[in-house]
Amino acid sequence: MSNDNQHKKFTKHASSDADGSSKPELLYDKNVAKPSHAEYARTLASKMNIATLCTISTKSEGYPYGSYVTYAMHEGDPIFLLSQLAEHTKNLDQNSKTSLLIAETGEGNPLALGRVTLVGECHEITGEDRDAAKHAFLEAHESASVYADWEDFAFFRLSVESVRYIGGFGRMSWVSGSRWGDAEADPVDEFSEDIITHMNEDHADALVLYCKAMSKAIDTSEAVMTAIDRYGFEIMATTESGKKPIRLAFGNDVKNSDEARVELVKLVKEARSILK
Amino acid sequence: MSNDNQHKKFTKHASSDADGSSKPELLYDKNVAKPSHAEYARTLASKMNIATLCTISTKSEGYPYGSYVTYAMHEGDPIFLLSQLAEHTKNLDQNSKTSLLIAETGEGNPLALGRVTLVGECHEITGEDRDAAKHAFLEAHESASVYADWEDFAFFRLSVESVRYIGGFGRMSWVSGSRWGDAEADPVDEFSEDIITHMNEDHADALVLYCKAMSKAIDTSEAVMTAIDRYGFEIMATTESGKKPIRLAFGNDVKNSDEARVELVKLVKEARSILK
Repeated sequence: MSNDNQHKKFTKHASSDADGSSKPELLYDKNVAKPSHAEYARTLASKMNIATLCTISTKSEGYPYGSYVTYAMHEGDPIFLLSQLAEHTKNLDQNSKTSLLIAETGEGNPLALGRVTLVGECHEITGEDRDAAKHAFLEAHESASVYADWEDFAFFRLSVESVRYIGGFGRMSWVSGSRWGDAEADPVDEFSEDIITHMNEDHADALVLYCKAMSKAIDTSEAVMTAIDRYGFEIMATTESGKKPIRLAFGNDVKNSDEARVELVKLVKEARSILK
Repeated sequence: MSNDNQHKKFTKHASSDADGSSKPELLYDKNVAKPSHAEYARTLASKMNIATLCTISTKSEGYPYGSYVTYAMHEGDPIFLLSQLAEHTKNLDQNSKTSLLIAETGEGNPLALGRVTLVGECHEITGEDRDAAKHAFLEAHESASVYADWEDFAFFRLSVESVRYIGGFGRMSWVSGSRWGDAEADPVDEFSEDIITHMNEDHADALVLYCKAMSKAIDTSEAVMTAIDRYGFEIMATTESGKKPIRLAFGNDVKNSDEARVELVKLVKEARSILK
């Protein structure tokens, strides 16, 4: 966990600020544990594998040039396998200043999706660092093994100096390189879709119970889990006064599906005892 | 139709260069009518509505800055609705040099997908041009009508000066601003998915017939339509020597599903008479 000031950990509190895409009335405590912007950004960067590389054009002097690249994360920096023939590689030969825009894909209003811009210098990886970078890249892009060692291809690394994170409408900040470096991608992210589907299909009653017992939405009639991370989870509750986003924190941080299940079951028992 | 030299129209010839993502042996005539790179690029730009805007950063001096934007095409240029608070807008205030990277989304190897970079200056749209731009933008992004007229939002236009088009592996070129301006987005593109599904589900026999009669793949046993445009269509044919990409041209350019159907039926009759 980073010491980012966006991350305040007070478990067992609920917040309505879970979903920044709308700005509903704040009914609940905002101080519930949640990932920092640095952590959200690292998670997004780890989840995706295509992005836009921005370089300074040599052909159109002084213009920024956007190109489509595949990447893999390695020690907090994006790694690329670039052809010497490509425009971006010619640009990098002249000017190493770059940024990489990584955008989440998904349904609904595109401006409600997360994106992160990584700013820094991008250089070819040579010497003993190349093997580890190549390994990380090919783990994410197996088919590139065919040309990874061709003479006109080389691995490049963008050394992240600063980060702009936008989590959706109105949720954004600059993250320093050191906070970025200290943060971890959320280990629960790869399981989140399965957990959310399972909870909504098989445990909708538990979700309603959480809301009634652990948030101010005591009149919740329906509840849908919308997100889960290592620190807690988010629910859209249907109440008499409309839909309310709620965030609840786990008693202990979780790292995988099994640990999440243990915490979710503990919370159901606690909710039942509160409502008794 | 543009006079781009990539566009050579000789109907009723077949080409195996239909699918640039692989580079199979060329068995067929390459001179079959097909869209120019300018036309492919205009079609892609019209089909998408989110992209990466590259500006020159004011905060990180001299660095290119990538950000996520929604856009709409208007008179061949992308239009944006930007908040004064956003980083890219602050950047544009200092330096109008920009590019926009538009990337196709889809399954499979991401580097086989199409993308286009539009390079040019980006300025706020004022005066009498604003209404038409606003209309075009809101037609593509209806929900933006809520804030389109807020004081801290403004419409911007990237005036395209040059274009880099990459259609997949090994299919790429620079397109001049004038060729870009002269080209049209393919009117058939919005119908292509439906036509392809219909042909593959209900007329697989006709696709085999086309290949046997009108290409050198006279031993085709199975055929799948993979693309269609105003000038013709593309088929992946299964032959005794493996899969072969084939392109066939229509006798007349088509603008919609009905006109495509007429041409496809004409070609079936012609194929039957050739094979008699």
